[in-house]
Amino acid sequence: MNQIAIESPAPAKTDEQLMANAIRALAMDAVQKANSGHPGMPMGMADVATILFNRFLQIDPSRPDWPDRDRFVLSAGHGSMLQYALHYLLGYEDMPIEELQRFRQLGSRTAGHPEYGHALGIETTTGPLGQGIATAVGMALAERMLAARFGDGLVDHFTYAIAGDGCLQEGMSHEAIDLAGHLGLSKLIVLWDDNRISIDGPTSLATSMDQPMRFRAAGWSVLSIDGHDLDAIAAALEEARTSDRPTLIACRTTIGKGAPNLGGSEKTHGAPLGAAEIAATRTNLGWDHPPFEIPGEVLRAWRTAPARGRTARAAWEARLAASPRRQEFESAVAGDLPEGVFEALSTFRQQHFENATNVATRKASELALAVINEATEQTVGGSADLTHSNLTITKGMARVSPGDFSGRYIHYGIREHAMAAAMNGMALHGGLVPYGGTFLCFADYARGAMRLSALMGQRVIYVMTHDSIGLGEDGPTHQPVEHLAMLRATPNLNVFRPADIIETAECWELALRSKHRPSVLVLSRQNLPMLRTKAPEASRSAQGAYLMRKPVGRRDLTLIATGSEVEIARAAADLLLERHHIRVALVSMPCWELFEEQDEAYRAEVLGTAPRIAVEAAARLGWDRWIGEGGAFIGMTGFGASAPAAELYRHFGITAEAIADAACAVVQKD
Amino acid sequence: MNQIAIESPAPAKTDEQLMANAIRALAMDAVQKANSGHPGMPMGMADVATILFNRFLQIDPSRPDWPDRDRFVLSAGHGSMLQYALHYLLGYEDMPIEELQRFRQLGSRTAGHPEYGHALGIETTTGPLGQGIATAVGMALAERMLAARFGDGLVDHFTYAIAGDGCLQEGMSHEAIDLAGHLGLSKLIVLWDDNRISIDGPTSLATSMDQPMRFRAAGWSVLSIDGHDLDAIAAALEEARTSDRPTLIACRTTIGKGAPNLGGSEKTHGAPLGAAEIAATRTNLGWDHPPFEIPGEVLRAWRTAPARGRTARAAWEARLAASPRRQEFESAVAGDLPEGVFEALSTFRQQHFENATNVATRKASELALAVINEATEQTVGGSADLTHSNLTITKGMARVSPGDFSGRYIHYGIREHAMAAAMNGMALHGGLVPYGGTFLCFADYARGAMRLSALMGQRVIYVMTHDSIGLGEDGPTHQPVEHLAMLRATPNLNVFRPADIIETAECWELALRSKHRPSVLVLSRQNLPMLRTKAPEASRSAQGAYLMRKPVGRRDLTLIATGSEVEIARAAADLLLERHHIRVALVSMPCWELFEEQDEAYRAEVLGTAPRIAVEAAARLGWDRWIGEGGAFIGMTGFGASAPAAELYRHFGITAEAIADAACAVVQKD
Repeated sequence: MNQIAIESPAPAKTDEQLMANAIRALAMDAVQKANSGHPGMPMGMADVATILFNRFLQIDPSRPDWPDRDRFVLSAGHGSMLQYALHYLLGYEDMPIEELQRFRQLGSRTAGHPEYGHALGIETTTGPLGQGIATAVGMALAERMLAARFGDGLVDHFTYAIAGDGCLQEGMSHEAIDLAGHLGLSKLIVLWDDNRISIDGPTSLATSMDQPMRFRAAGWSVLSIDGHDLDAIAAALEEARTSDRPTLIACRTTIGKGAPNLGGSEKTHGAPLGAAEIAATRTNLGWDHPPFEIPGEVLRAWRTAPARGRTARAAWEARLAASPRRQEFESAVAGDLPEGVFEALSTFRQQHFENATNVATRKASELALAVINEATEQTVGGSADLTHSNLTITKGMARVSPGDFSGRYIHYGIREHAMAAAMNGMALHGGLVPYGGTFLCFADYARGAMRLSALMGQRVIYVMTHDSIGLGEDGPTHQPVEHLAMLRATPNLNVFRPADIIETAECWELALRSKHRPSVLVLSRQNLPMLRTKAPEASRSAQGAYLMRKPVGRRDLTLIATGSEVEIARAAADLLLERHHIRVALVSMPCWELFEEQDEAYRAEVLGTAPRIAVEAAARLGWDRWIGEGGAFIGMTGFGASAPAAELYRHFGITAEAIADAACAVVQKD
Repeated sequence: MNQIAIESPAPAKTDEQLMANAIRALAMDAVQKANSGHPGMPMGMADVATILFNRFLQIDPSRPDWPDRDRFVLSAGHGSMLQYALHYLLGYEDMPIEELQRFRQLGSRTAGHPEYGHALGIETTTGPLGQGIATAVGMALAERMLAARFGDGLVDHFTYAIAGDGCLQEGMSHEAIDLAGHLGLSKLIVLWDDNRISIDGPTSLATSMDQPMRFRAAGWSVLSIDGHDLDAIAAALEEARTSDRPTLIACRTTIGKGAPNLGGSEKTHGAPLGAAEIAATRTNLGWDHPPFEIPGEVLRAWRTAPARGRTARAAWEARLAASPRRQEFESAVAGDLPEGVFEALSTFRQQHFENATNVATRKASELALAVINEATEQTVGGSADLTHSNLTITKGMARVSPGDFSGRYIHYGIREHAMAAAMNGMALHGGLVPYGGTFLCFADYARGAMRLSALMGQRVIYVMTHDSIGLGEDGPTHQPVEHLAMLRATPNLNVFRPADIIETAECWELALRSKHRPSVLVLSRQNLPMLRTKAPEASRSAQGAYLMRKPVGRRDLTLIATGSEVEIARAAADLLLERHHIRVALVSMPCWELFEEQDEAYRAEVLGTAPRIAVEAAARLGWDRWIGEGGAFIGMTGFGASAPAAELYRHFGITAEAIADAACAVVQKD
């Protein structure tokens, strides 16, 4: 256990009251200056945050990336001024007072909601409610998993989150607390800002939930305190740290605490207090300092708070230096995968090319994963209760179970959203490379967290199988149509739809190499032939799209397809040549995003100048970019249906014959 | 109270055991024949379903649309064979035995998951887990609201749902049960198939949730029974029906009950039992009838079950005939809005055209809603805790509160997904036209249920404000970029992005008139000028896109924009004419879907043959369809940022100047 004991006596209460009031003043003044923002939450939770940061949290602002620091997540992200005020007070070098004065301005580090990567020490992006608490679960899980691998000497920290009523009302909070309670993530502590106010007014407008009972039902310890009683806050945190379960501390607070007229009202939630109320608050708090000025004694008190963390960090570094596993640990934390992973994948491609392995791409993914998981211990697999459909588990992967974190496969339960957010948390924590599976259609359930993977640039790998009407009988509720468009429209997200086992291995490699971008692997349920015709020495998928077949001589038509439709397009190409002497260039396009990044000459070569037809068992939206004028699209125009897959392809006209008919029309027209 | 007493003595237990076994046999045989499907759940819940349908549920298969029937929702939709077996046994005319023999085949009524509209008596589409239970909450809410309006004599029925472990693990279940518990929807009864098995294996792999405690925390009554004890099931249902709260009946069952070797195992969940196990099950159950054959006495017992409902229906019809509000009731249930709504909107458009009202489209929506809600009582408003941001409440709308359902505004809480699903439930129930608000970005949280609105063709109206970087300081977590593409790619969903108050009123009218299609109104936070230049006698938005301004003489360029960017495009058009003598046709395109439905001549006229530039503060994906080759797109290429809106528009280059620059390049190139 590397958590050092709290050696110094608790600071005098009056000091901490002043420290808390400094947060209140900075929050209300910054929101006022920005004329936008949320003062109520920082003012309400100032006391809790002061005790947490002054007495407990082990961080070192001079080394914000210290791997074994405690993690702090502001799940109620609209209270961002709480975090920025703390960062200024604690002395983060990138958070001078000027940044607080530029709250919510273009290019400042003090964005409207805390943004990962915008300022040192922000552990995750929050704002969309519920994300923070679920991401914190992933961080706490990563901590236990890494502790199981590297020992408590290298990994042993707490994860704290501040959550509001909104976070606890969001559905994803249910998924997250169920998972955390089940696994017994005892070093996760959630401080609930129980102020009984949300935007519309009192929470009693919309909820009667007994939150403590609810958390107990999920296997949590629950403590309830007055969130303005400094000693009670400290005592609760002490107790929570020794629990064998995750702990919810329900902190009864007054929103906008300190504001004499508006405190306790939803009016302090999301708007500046106004000059008059700010003046009255100053008087009420006895805070007679100008805006953005913190008296020396208060600032000194805050600046000494990190000493505890600094000492712990130094001790930790000594342990790391002495550890025989230092290199391994540092490499994992840096996110570097061993070269062996990529060598193994290269061999894999060669072998399956020679064998002409014909399998569903979900099966191809499983085969590739077997090689990847053999070559590194950093990958952590899982599925939202579709393990043997997504094919995400490989031989020898033990499951993570309550109290035993030595495994590397997670049964996330039927909880797509928490799975995605927990993967964000694991990736943000560092040391692990998470991948997780569900059906592509249920990307819908995980959308909120998937968007944050992209916004934060995290290497989270989504394994999404059953990717079209090709899943067959389960019908339209399970058949994605619009999901590829939804994912492709999302910035900073690579969407891979490989056509065969070779492309699947290439896409896995690209996903693993994308350290700052999440990936979605979109995979078929149905079997697909190996299509590659040349030995796969170099990855073709890396270019996003490529000529799988070029006609001899002139090109009459270009067929562009992805995934399971490449086989159909290839059959159409054969048919067109045989029956109509139409010479077709066949383009496989596993990743639009990477293709867009190629130079214009390459793109022009691939797309050609002949008419183009795109084929994909999904919505057309987006495809016109590649089709151009005078082309056609063969795909879905509405929802799917329940029937065997082959019948559905015929029913919806996604067949070689239909492509050939469209091709004849297009080429003739041309 | 129109629920008639259970007059006949309970049928002999042995009869009901046979009745339940009939379900088991049909389920296992149909799945076997389809070679696909889920026998475990229907076999496990056959006893519960038998008691529910034989002794309690008030329906009339000969009048499946009887407005006051009890609603039954199979939230665990993979168990669809339970529903189809029941429908055959009860004698629904569209569910002969041949349909069960065509389970999961193209064009059959027996789709893989229950699909609303595919067979009589299916109240909602289920399959994506959690949706059913949340939709049932909306149905139960609609029932109470209509009872408050029309009296218990016309509306007084129960809503029953069967939910599995998956439904209760999904986050949306939390949102739904919190809402139901808060409002005290005492006529909602959820039967939980507590079989401790999910797809990956025992639920203990992934959850330790104490579900009864969890539901109690949400304000529910909870009963726990042996789900194979017929008397216990009946007693629990009796008790649940008298509770003053919604009730969860935890039914401990054996998945695949009856199968001697596989019963109790996840192997029965999602695959046929196989011929050998089916034979063994027949022996085990003493069921020596061939596949799809039900002995006469059992079928007769089932066919007499609806007598209770038929009697109740006849009594109800007599009450309706005698009711002074018959016409009003029937018109509401038919979903017909009074013509006055549309007349009022027409006047509204004229007035605001004359006044040249310049407001944010969210404000325009509020003003239009005031007129709509004044002209009809059928609309039910709400917001996921953003009432005064979405501007969804209008004067005189009382809120729905625990025990008082006379209001028509619902504080859904911070629960976007449950809001959407509850609106589906209200629309499906009939008698109400629900609309609900959140920020467009948080469509992410509601995606699963929004997709079902579209798949089921329900008139649910989503009011989604803060529709771009124009929301300003809240930053990229709140700024939609990919959401328009996501929604536009969804089949059977109208996405409206009006440019001014006139278009907003037109889009509201179109949404209200779309009885079989959901609509999303995408609205600005920022103020926008009234742009319409001709008196708005006819709705231009009805055509999806229209020429807002035509140049005199030749057309050099077409600018296409939506929503808040139409104003910017208009400024660019002015600038291009003044500085560069480029004559611009300006197209406002509030609804792609409706534009696609216009005839080719109209579309060609609007789009023109000159080069085209599209302008939208969102992702490009999809726009190439309208731009064509040689054009350009001015919009977002990545996520947004936190800053005042005007600065963001400049920062991201969505300005009249940027459009003009692009136009010069495009026209020159041309």
